[in-house]
Amino acid sequence: MEIVDLILFNAEILTMDLDFHSYNPGAIAISGALIEAVGAENEILEKFDAAKKIDCGGKILMPGLINAHTHVPMTLLRGLADDLRLDVWLMGYMMPVEREYVSPDFVQLGTKLACAEMIRSGVTSFADMYYFEEEVAKATAAVGMRAVCSQTVLKFPTPDAQFFEESLEMSRDFISRWKNHDLIIPSVAPHAPYTCTPEILKSTAELAIEYDVPLHIHISETASEVENMRRENQMPVVPYVKKQNLFDAKVLAAHCVHLDEGEIHTLQHFGAGVAHNPSSNMKLASGFAPVKRMLEIGLNVGIGTDGPSSNNDLDMFEELRLASFIQKGYTGDPTALPARTTLLMATRLGAQAMHIGNLTGSLEHGKRADLILLDLTPLHNSPRFRHDPNGTYGQIVYAAKATDVTDVMVNGKWLMVDRILTSLDEPELMIHANEYARKIDQFLIKRESSVLSKLVAIGGTSEEESFEIQAKVRIHHPEIMIKKLLDSDIEIIRKRHFREFDLYFFFADVDQGILRYREDEFLDEQGKIEQVRSRLTLIGPTSEDKFEQEVLLSRSRYLAPATQSPRFYREYFKPHLEKEIEKDRIRYLVRYKDVEFFINFDEIKKPNLGCFLEVKSRTWSRQDAEMKSKLVTELIEFLGADFDEATSEDYIEMVR
Amino acid sequence: MEIVDLILFNAEILTMDLDFHSYNPGAIAISGALIEAVGAENEILEKFDAAKKIDCGGKILMPGLINAHTHVPMTLLRGLADDLRLDVWLMGYMMPVEREYVSPDFVQLGTKLACAEMIRSGVTSFADMYYFEEEVAKATAAVGMRAVCSQTVLKFPTPDAQFFEESLEMSRDFISRWKNHDLIIPSVAPHAPYTCTPEILKSTAELAIEYDVPLHIHISETASEVENMRRENQMPVVPYVKKQNLFDAKVLAAHCVHLDEGEIHTLQHFGAGVAHNPSSNMKLASGFAPVKRMLEIGLNVGIGTDGPSSNNDLDMFEELRLASFIQKGYTGDPTALPARTTLLMATRLGAQAMHIGNLTGSLEHGKRADLILLDLTPLHNSPRFRHDPNGTYGQIVYAAKATDVTDVMVNGKWLMVDRILTSLDEPELMIHANEYARKIDQFLIKRESSVLSKLVAIGGTSEEESFEIQAKVRIHHPEIMIKKLLDSDIEIIRKRHFREFDLYFFFADVDQGILRYREDEFLDEQGKIEQVRSRLTLIGPTSEDKFEQEVLLSRSRYLAPATQSPRFYREYFKPHLEKEIEKDRIRYLVRYKDVEFFINFDEIKKPNLGCFLEVKSRTWSRQDAEMKSKLVTELIEFLGADFDEATSEDYIEMVR
Repeated sequence: MEIVDLILFNAEILTMDLDFHSYNPGAIAISGALIEAVGAENEILEKFDAAKKIDCGGKILMPGLINAHTHVPMTLLRGLADDLRLDVWLMGYMMPVEREYVSPDFVQLGTKLACAEMIRSGVTSFADMYYFEEEVAKATAAVGMRAVCSQTVLKFPTPDAQFFEESLEMSRDFISRWKNHDLIIPSVAPHAPYTCTPEILKSTAELAIEYDVPLHIHISETASEVENMRRENQMPVVPYVKKQNLFDAKVLAAHCVHLDEGEIHTLQHFGAGVAHNPSSNMKLASGFAPVKRMLEIGLNVGIGTDGPSSNNDLDMFEELRLASFIQKGYTGDPTALPARTTLLMATRLGAQAMHIGNLTGSLEHGKRADLILLDLTPLHNSPRFRHDPNGTYGQIVYAAKATDVTDVMVNGKWLMVDRILTSLDEPELMIHANEYARKIDQFLIKRESSVLSKLVAIGGTSEEESFEIQAKVRIHHPEIMIKKLLDSDIEIIRKRHFREFDLYFFFADVDQGILRYREDEFLDEQGKIEQVRSRLTLIGPTSEDKFEQEVLLSRSRYLAPATQSPRFYREYFKPHLEKEIEKDRIRYLVRYKDVEFFINFDEIKKPNLGCFLEVKSRTWSRQDAEMKSKLVTELIEFLGADFDEATSEDYIEMVR
Repeated sequence: MEIVDLILFNAEILTMDLDFHSYNPGAIAISGALIEAVGAENEILEKFDAAKKIDCGGKILMPGLINAHTHVPMTLLRGLADDLRLDVWLMGYMMPVEREYVSPDFVQLGTKLACAEMIRSGVTSFADMYYFEEEVAKATAAVGMRAVCSQTVLKFPTPDAQFFEESLEMSRDFISRWKNHDLIIPSVAPHAPYTCTPEILKSTAELAIEYDVPLHIHISETASEVENMRRENQMPVVPYVKKQNLFDAKVLAAHCVHLDEGEIHTLQHFGAGVAHNPSSNMKLASGFAPVKRMLEIGLNVGIGTDGPSSNNDLDMFEELRLASFIQKGYTGDPTALPARTTLLMATRLGAQAMHIGNLTGSLEHGKRADLILLDLTPLHNSPRFRHDPNGTYGQIVYAAKATDVTDVMVNGKWLMVDRILTSLDEPELMIHANEYARKIDQFLIKRESSVLSKLVAIGGTSEEESFEIQAKVRIHHPEIMIKKLLDSDIEIIRKRHFREFDLYFFFADVDQGILRYREDEFLDEQGKIEQVRSRLTLIGPTSEDKFEQEVLLSRSRYLAPATQSPRFYREYFKPHLEKEIEKDRIRYLVRYKDVEFFINFDEIKKPNLGCFLEVKSRTWSRQDAEMKSKLVTELIEFLGADFDEATSEDYIEMVR
């Protein structure tokens, strides 16, 4: 008799090993963190003895589930914003809130909250990618779960670093300190090809190779990511990252929704793992990943929940079911991704995708004791058929729920016993989580209450309040006036020719002002487009004061470069009403009596409102404004415009 | 103060009424089965008093969920067979098992098991379609749930009727007896256009109209159903059933996966309800229903689980999530089917689709008290954000689980209190369910053990063991022999010219025999195809006995018309190996010395094996066989074939 620490017996064991061995009744012998043996109950009990023997009461005993891609601290952002487009969700909500709130404390709390939920759903290992990743590692190790913890590096400032060099240095420190930890596999995560420079991709790969740790990255999540890559680099995403030597490292590629056949073969060739994220890909409408094909070609494809802010939970039972359903629905083949294959993805293949297949993912001699007990007696599993040996896999994938998990062991230690967590205080976690939620609610309520603060939240404004003196007169023959101007002594500093497309957003609360999205096409002498520029302007009440002859003092508040599409701003700002104007503008910057003025000859083409002369100048004081007001009047008279045709209306006010 | 029977207070109430009123804290006043009033807690408590007041402890109080399409007795078949194609699943497993086991007892037990699971997942009303539907009604009424119970009518024999007239009569009896029941809305269900005759569709519609009850039907579930309809009737499914006056009744159309724009408008025009079944459509790979479009056009679209044998559960929380995810994924628009709309489908719209919107589906004065309490404190719902009033809908649809439902009331009566069912004994139900499962397991294990019994299970065999005497000789000039035959005195009874395509299935256990799928193309004198016939033959060991000159006594066992595709049989019989043969056969039926013989001149074209002469005759006794063996030898000699070229091999044995 060999003596081990622990024997679990009277269980229906699914090993998920290469031959899908199963034993009913089966038993497992465990010494310390390691599995000594798995087999038929009578054989194990004949060969082994232990001080502690546990009767599993006929429950399913199987490897713990592997969550192959997530962002655990984002559990604190669950339900923050739903039903939005990826860019609005990410840049309008996630990133501004993360900039404001993500801290070591946030990350620790979010990780623990996530661990509690994952243990309850039978997860024993996960692959994470976030900021302050060492805090994720600390919290996870304290809880006792196994994880690949990947420190994010990207080309933008992040909550934990101003420049990518800092993140890279943090990654190196983190990896070198945690390299030989029993539960944590430290790793580096260049966030995605489109958020990293080639230099970042190369240097993170070098770091991962130097320490022989996994490299975690988002690959081809959306169609537009792939389109952009093809346009900018004349190749899809996988060859591009291959060019940066990424595959010299042990890569875990999350998503892989939009891959071509060649890219799948490349991933297979280099032994890269894939993390498929069913809920997230559906909820964010990213597309349907070709999982069936990836498996056929021999890729290690695991299943991940992604962050709970795009899921909105960490329930691997849901992901199992959805992974199978999606492949069936998307390939039109109901035999695609049968239950056993799907469960394999969430166990052994997932561990292999994370490059920890030597440690976990199946119940085999020498692997770590990472296992769960599943109680299939609750009514929603009833009845149970036995005629088909694959029936148990079907039961688990298509009918069982996370709440059927009763016990969870990681590395030989129980983390949940009879649905009680051993290493976490859930009520306390929830209290702290809701404290964060209240703070973030306040932040968002304040932000949502003002167009200006929403504008600031998505990238700030480049310029704040500015005042202008301006006059506008309807004209009929701009070419005659232009000739008069050019023939005069007035100094022409610069001439510009634009086509301007303006989209105005109006809000129910008029005090919010009007938000203008303007695209300027700069035209050269031949009328060809030289350059395009997009800007957002939040416009206050048009007129602050009025001088003689309809000369106005106006205020243009808050200018920002428009880095997103009009659609983004529409969905983000949710305007009450929209109007469009298109105009042709010839603009002269002139010096008249030592003062600079802009003279615009505008033709409003859509709607067809005719031609206008505008004269404008920046100002900063009432006295200056009064002086300039006089000069504006002189200039308009000189050019021969008729003050009876002057208007104090902005163009947008003329659009009915 | 108005006195009511019951007040529920301190709840976060979602009414799901037309304006989506919500109250937090809210209260609801109930008298008997009816809702008196819903509103802000202080207003209700000021206006009403009751002997019984219940503090809901801040839980969500909302209308019970509506499962708009299911087959509840099939809960007893959950997990019976998964990962199969619709036809294999239906005709290979569901229908044979149903033929054998479905009885009033089966239906009652399955209904109760389903009710237990549905109550636990917050369902208060459902629309069912099955056999012995009055038993479904009885069980449901005893449990206390609300249901539209639809008696199935179809053109095939069913477990409860040999002919459709019987089902129709059963439907009439059932409807007339239950017409005014407080909980049950009796209804009739012509199963689907492709399983009903036009006469069935018309007569069921007339019945539904006569009694003013809903008519429940499957519409356009699969693409092939629509293709067949277009081919046979030159129109898609909705116009076809419209032609049978179906829409004069109050129709509840399940699935509606493959509809065109015109069909959606037709459904809307006639006020038909739609039941969308997300899990089932995905699991059986039926396709993606255009739910977003149907809602835009104003259809009442509810959500159903379908039967638990294609789902495999009755969890409406899963269906909610999946309904939203599918539309986002399938339309590529993450804003499609936002959480509030999805929850509306599973409540008010579902009730309207079932034509019981006057009774239930929202919390409003005068409607029945069908409601649930949801506890969103379990950790997987944490944290909760409050900044967005739609956040609660998102929480329910994207994060909450069925197990968060704590209390369920139907028609003013509690069916679950603090997760305890009041009207069902779950352990007892599960014991009986597993008794059925054991019986069905035995039936299937026995069946799966033999190719013959699997053949019998899918429609029986038309003919059993038959013996033949036969000889086969390789020849080189069939045309010379044919001329010799025609020039002789031998009487030619009939001539046939075929092209034969044979697909042979081999099994690991050779004693099972070989299954041949043969397609015969009958050719006319011009070589044009006159007719096509498909047959299955289960072939035993080729040779039973051998006479002189390689004349064999052979046995051809079990002949059946092949009503399914080769693909069906491949997936159903799961052969170990397959081989194909294609041949051209000219067959003469002749009378020679008062005995009938078949003389085949075969050219084996695929693989190219050359030409053969076969002479065959049916036999029934050893003496007869010996006599015919001699005549066969004479015939072969007469035709001038060379016995050195005789073979005892079957063609399939020649294929290496």
